[in-house]
Amino acid sequence: MKVTVNISLKEGVLDPQGRAVERSLASIGFTEASNVRIGKQITLDVDAEDTARAHQRAARMCEQILANTVIEDYEITIEEDQ
Amino acid sequence: MKVTVNISLKEGVLDPQGRAVERSLASIGFTEASNVRIGKQITLDVDAEDTARAHQRAARMCEQILANTVIEDYEITIEEDQ
Repeated sequence: MKVTVNISLKEGVLDPQGRAVERSLASIGFTEASNVRIGKQITLDVDAEDTARAHQRAARMCEQILANTVIEDYEITIEEDQ
Repeated sequence: MKVTVNISLKEGVLDPQGRAVERSLASIGFTEASNVRIGKQITLDVDAEDTARAHQRAARMCEQILANTVIEDYEITIEEDQ
C-alpha cells in the first residue's frame, strides 16, 4: 500500500528554515507570503494485509525513527493498491 | 489563504536520503517498507483576493525559488480561509 507521511513542526516550535524561506520570498517580491513552515513528506510502500495494519506499522515507524515527536507532529494517509 | 506545497523528486531521480531511511527502517525491523522517498511539505499563508490568484502566485514561488524544477515536481493545494 502507498503510504504518505506528513511531518510538520508542532505549533509554537520555531522554524528558522521557514523564516529564511519567507525572507527570501519577500526579497524577490513575494511579500504576500507569511507564516512559512517547512515539513517533510515521506512516501513509501508498506507491505501489509490491510489498511489498519499498514497504518499501525507506519505510526510505529514515525514514533521510532521518522519523526521527532518531541517537536514534530505526523499525519499518515494510506492509499490502497488498485 | 492557507497554501500547501508538496515538493517531491521526479520519478527516476535517485533519492539517497530515502534509500538511507529505508535501510534504517529495515535495520530496526520494518522490512515491509520499500520505495521510500522524501520530499518537502511547505505550508504558508498567501494574501490574495481569490483562490486562482493564490494558486498562480504559489506556482510562481515554486518555479522561482521553492522547487528545483529540473529534478522536482510540485503540487499546490489551497484552502480558503473560513
